Amino acid sequence: MNSTQRCRLLAGAALCVLAGVSLARDEGMWLLTSPPRTILKDRYGFEPSAAWLEHMQKAAVRFSTGGSGSIISSDGLVMTNHHVGSDVLAQLSTKSRDLLETGFYARTRGEELRCPDLELNVLWQIKDVTAEVNAGAKDGMSTADAGAARQRAIADIAKKAQDETKLKCEVVTLYQGARYHLYCYKRYTDVRLVFAPEQAIAFFGGDTDNFEFPRFNLDMCFFRIYEDGLPLQPEHFLSWSSGSKEGDLALVLGHPGSTERLYTSDHLRFLRDTLIPERLRQIWRSEVRAQIFMGRNAENQRLGNEDLLGVANGRKAFMGELAGLHDPAVMGGKAAAEAKLREAVRANPEWNKHWGDGWELVAKAEHDRLAWFRRWFVFERGLRSDLIGHARDIVRHAEETGKPNAERLRDFRDSSLPSLYTQLMSPAPVHEALEVYRVEGALSFMAEMLGAEDPAVLAALGGKSPKARADELVLGTTLKDPAARKKLVEGGSAALAESKDPMIAFWKLVDKESRELRARHEREVEAAEQAGYAKIAAAKFAAEGENTYPDATFTLRLAFGPIKGYSENAKEVPPYTDFAGLYERYQDRKGQVGFELPERWVRGKGRLDLTTPFNFVCGADIIGGNSGSPVVNTKGEVIGLIFDGNIHSLVGAFQYDATLNRAVAVDSRAIIEALRKLYDAGPLVDEMQGKSR
Amino acid sequence: MNSTQRCRLLAGAALCVLAGVSLARDEGMWLLTSPPRTILKDRYGFEPSAAWLEHMQKAAVRFSTGGSGSIISSDGLVMTNHHVGSDVLAQLSTKSRDLLETGFYARTRGEELRCPDLELNVLWQIKDVTAEVNAGAKDGMSTADAGAARQRAIADIAKKAQDETKLKCEVVTLYQGARYHLYCYKRYTDVRLVFAPEQAIAFFGGDTDNFEFPRFNLDMCFFRIYEDGLPLQPEHFLSWSSGSKEGDLALVLGHPGSTERLYTSDHLRFLRDTLIPERLRQIWRSEVRAQIFMGRNAENQRLGNEDLLGVANGRKAFMGELAGLHDPAVMGGKAAAEAKLREAVRANPEWNKHWGDGWELVAKAEHDRLAWFRRWFVFERGLRSDLIGHARDIVRHAEETGKPNAERLRDFRDSSLPSLYTQLMSPAPVHEALEVYRVEGALSFMAEMLGAEDPAVLAALGGKSPKARADELVLGTTLKDPAARKKLVEGGSAALAESKDPMIAFWKLVDKESRELRARHEREVEAAEQAGYAKIAAAKFAAEGENTYPDATFTLRLAFGPIKGYSENAKEVPPYTDFAGLYERYQDRKGQVGFELPERWVRGKGRLDLTTPFNFVCGADIIGGNSGSPVVNTKGEVIGLIFDGNIHSLVGAFQYDATLNRAVAVDSRAIIEALRKLYDAGPLVDEMQGKSR
Repeated sequence: MNSTQRCRLLAGAALCVLAGVSLARDEGMWLLTSPPRTILKDRYGFEPSAAWLEHMQKAAVRFSTGGSGSIISSDGLVMTNHHVGSDVLAQLSTKSRDLLETGFYARTRGEELRCPDLELNVLWQIKDVTAEVNAGAKDGMSTADAGAARQRAIADIAKKAQDETKLKCEVVTLYQGARYHLYCYKRYTDVRLVFAPEQAIAFFGGDTDNFEFPRFNLDMCFFRIYEDGLPLQPEHFLSWSSGSKEGDLALVLGHPGSTERLYTSDHLRFLRDTLIPERLRQIWRSEVRAQIFMGRNAENQRLGNEDLLGVANGRKAFMGELAGLHDPAVMGGKAAAEAKLREAVRANPEWNKHWGDGWELVAKAEHDRLAWFRRWFVFERGLRSDLIGHARDIVRHAEETGKPNAERLRDFRDSSLPSLYTQLMSPAPVHEALEVYRVEGALSFMAEMLGAEDPAVLAALGGKSPKARADELVLGTTLKDPAARKKLVEGGSAALAESKDPMIAFWKLVDKESRELRARHEREVEAAEQAGYAKIAAAKFAAEGENTYPDATFTLRLAFGPIKGYSENAKEVPPYTDFAGLYERYQDRKGQVGFELPERWVRGKGRLDLTTPFNFVCGADIIGGNSGSPVVNTKGEVIGLIFDGNIHSLVGAFQYDATLNRAVAVDSRAIIEALRKLYDAGPLVDEMQGKSR
Repeated sequence: MNSTQRCRLLAGAALCVLAGVSLARDEGMWLLTSPPRTILKDRYGFEPSAAWLEHMQKAAVRFSTGGSGSIISSDGLVMTNHHVGSDVLAQLSTKSRDLLETGFYARTRGEELRCPDLELNVLWQIKDVTAEVNAGAKDGMSTADAGAARQRAIADIAKKAQDETKLKCEVVTLYQGARYHLYCYKRYTDVRLVFAPEQAIAFFGGDTDNFEFPRFNLDMCFFRIYEDGLPLQPEHFLSWSSGSKEGDLALVLGHPGSTERLYTSDHLRFLRDTLIPERLRQIWRSEVRAQIFMGRNAENQRLGNEDLLGVANGRKAFMGELAGLHDPAVMGGKAAAEAKLREAVRANPEWNKHWGDGWELVAKAEHDRLAWFRRWFVFERGLRSDLIGHARDIVRHAEETGKPNAERLRDFRDSSLPSLYTQLMSPAPVHEALEVYRVEGALSFMAEMLGAEDPAVLAALGGKSPKARADELVLGTTLKDPAARKKLVEGGSAALAESKDPMIAFWKLVDKESRELRARHEREVEAAEQAGYAKIAAAKFAAEGENTYPDATFTLRLAFGPIKGYSENAKEVPPYTDFAGLYERYQDRKGQVGFELPERWVRGKGRLDLTTPFNFVCGADIIGGNSGSPVVNTKGEVIGLIFDGNIHSLVGAFQYDATLNRAVAVDSRAIIEALRKLYDAGPLVDEMQGKSR
């Protein structure tokens, strides 16, 4: 029995924290610059060398669409999840060629399909810039002024680094503001689709099995990076393992999106009682609306698929998080740990002087924002569609690029412009029916949330109903054409002033309040949070040591844990599933939505070794954004591909529970077996396994 | 071109009203005591006799579950919609016998299935009691006091009538309080299921086609009323027609649930900006949660079906209503009509003195309630499940029945008790899994809406998460057993004081605030609305005459209009569909959710006359609650069975548009053809057609 388990058996999680056990077993999304050396050595006898860490760092890939991946061949082959690649698959599909339904395999390089606007990043350089960022924030400044000074410093640091390195450079806020790191990435925009299975096997079990285990998903997708028209010859790529077994240490390299583990109780209350309920309200609405749209005809079914999957996935995640926050044990544990740290700070006059007001700073920010939260949420989270996004970016681009770099909105700083242009000039098709449904949804959401006679709503609707206005904007705009967007971007303010485009005109009507709300949020919420959390983190470092990890920030992290099952409702859940289990579940749920199998899998059953491990769980601490992360053994060889967490991982946004929280991966052996036996993709397997082709 | 059409072509709906055209062609849900005699005679040459009206009234049936129906044989056979009977079908189903999937036909009287708690009402006596109701409301009283005085009078009138007639008596508020009628019903509780088709053909097209046209639905269900253990031998029942044709006058007798056509602009604003958005938030949430519940396994799929259909239907209706209110033409038309009436009132000093403040009374009530609307909504609309409802009724029954009749909450007055007991003692099974999901949903809704640390939420949850608390309440309560409920009801306050039942204890925790909010709503909203609307209605009568109809109140009404298609997006929609069209749509949408056909229909196609009219539309002005209404010709013979309105009918809550608004019905000939050819139900057809059996 390990200490965490004993602790839980005694009196629940809260006690563990009070007793000073600040990390659960196998907890953590660690920086590669500060890996958990002692834990890995003491617990697993593994000592990652600097070379091992650099190799992992430079083989790991970040997807601009919000996922992770890895380079797995000397010819720049990239592995990720099907659900990370699926928006690209949708972009590349047409009414008569639905890649989500049929899957895709380029048997030759020439058949590989170029992705319209996918950008892959590989982290190349890391530097601690905390002192430089904080240099301009003087004692005595208001939190808003200090925050603004830091933002200017961040803009300068990123621009300088970008000019010097020609890499894509970002300053990352770690530990909610206690540390700042400069990350510079290699940026790849010529990315081509190599292979994807049918969505039915990639997402077998559908919404019902999402975030559950046992699972049977071939949630994988392969791309290839090109540089100067040729396949990338990478310095670092992962090699393939011969498989794993129960108890093996699994190491996960990926880009967890965001966690809220350092949040104060007051901040969590804001999430629990305001942010997540409003977000869920929007999600439930979007989920039902997507289903309505898709029900109308077969083409809508195809077009709406991505929106529905995304929103349903978010719904499951947020409902899981909210259930966690509604569990008194979770909030109680958080409150107890916080009380202990605050007590330690109060007991030390020096600490108390510097850091004692950190919690109040956060509490005040979360409280004060309630007064204008709804408007901020509508403008900053509610007005979404491809075309609305294009109009917003074009209008703001003209205005922002007229300002000095350090004074611009984040997304329009020089360091951000290349990625912005990739998005704005994307040749991906814009589907009118889909956009009308999205724009109508955004406009009616605005009217529902603010009231139909709110001045902003009246302006946005221009005397029309949301549906009539959406028709007018989408059918009338030229922004569906990337050339028209390019012309407006290049034409700058003069072109915009002359433009009669209705979508541009629409965004001009809402831009002022949207900007004001964003600025207010940065000034009154983000700056105050950073100021408060920097103090809390400093106190935490002082009281508990620095050997810990920061909350997730969609930057590269190392997570770890053994391949190991768990107990649920007094039943043992073993760590591996196999192909035989897939066919059993298919029989059991036959005919139900989400449990269809592609014909290839029905017919091909006899060709498969049914004992092949299919999916497995391990204790690695992951969260959304880690999708597509490689799972490697201590030799750095691929043993799996992360695609999900179990249901107990959803509360992982706030805390990690080693007894139940599990990451879910596709087994490397299932990938090989399926590619060889069902997809006739021997050359691809050979490439992955490093065999000459 | 009729006047309404010309008017629309000139300058939109607003002008029509300003020009004094107060009713659209074929508009109205008319009282049988004040039918539209002139309109019917002038436009259709039809003069309904007193005998015709009485015959219709006494053959019409109201379903306690919220629908309409009619007696159609000398042996008490009752026709309604499948979707009106479906909750009974679900109650009568088991894991191994799913009547919704298989349908049902009792070939003999002995095979008919008794419905657990279905109550049918037939309106027998009508009396205007406006003077008696208003007698206690003296000049100078506050609106709240006047409202309370009216409520006491209403209770006394109903009780006296019930004692005298032994019928079920209710006082109905008409014209929002300008008139009060006493309605006394024959009440039937021995009702047995005779026939239902498969849900797949009753609801063919599913959510996608709901509220649309063309349609292909056999949305019918047959019950039989028993009295003293024998089939009812009714004085009045409808006979069957030989069919209808385009242009025929269709007359609809049914119980429209509620409309808001007389609402003031301020009241509509409250619906548009507050009530409907919050209701939709709850509905979207429920719809997604129902789908999650149903996805878990096949039995959940069956159990959750009724909840999902109900909520999806409500969602489509409310989204349609909201889209109407977001249409400036609708609100503009309302505002213009209101301005015209208010101007007429202002211009007449006597009118102005009596009625001039009617609009402000309503406006103030709708404004002031915003401050406590959310709590009211959670307590009065959010805490729903079968078991929570039983606990509430049992707790309140003990307290209320200890008071004088006129002082009790409406649902516990003597006149309401028989129906209450039918519900409380229902032998219908309570499914634990379904109830846990509902109770968890209610508790988490409460926490989301009020915040998890709201005192009421803390009390309701008792230190547990919503899921753990739902498990505790549902698994622990004895209220699943009707005998246990009966014992608690009969034991009264003493039994309740001793009860250790967790669900009873739960309701006691929330009852106080729930009652306070309800009382506040009756006092500050309902009473003020009644006072205001009574004035507005009086002004309307004075200015426009009394020859009009009141808003719907789930009481018997006559609607009418020709069998007639309409134009939509420049396309003519013909009034009739046929069986051939069903098979075409089935082929077209094959494999998609909601478009499955029962095996019987696939195999039996060759036996059907495919030219048989299947569904039709007519101009009758109907709304939710009219489901199951018979459509008759001027001879009073059944030509159809209302089951829906088209998409343009959704805004019918606020206004009727003769050019587009259509009621959708099953054709009487399709009923006969399907019963004879596919269901081998000759004896049932013979009974309906009055042939000896």
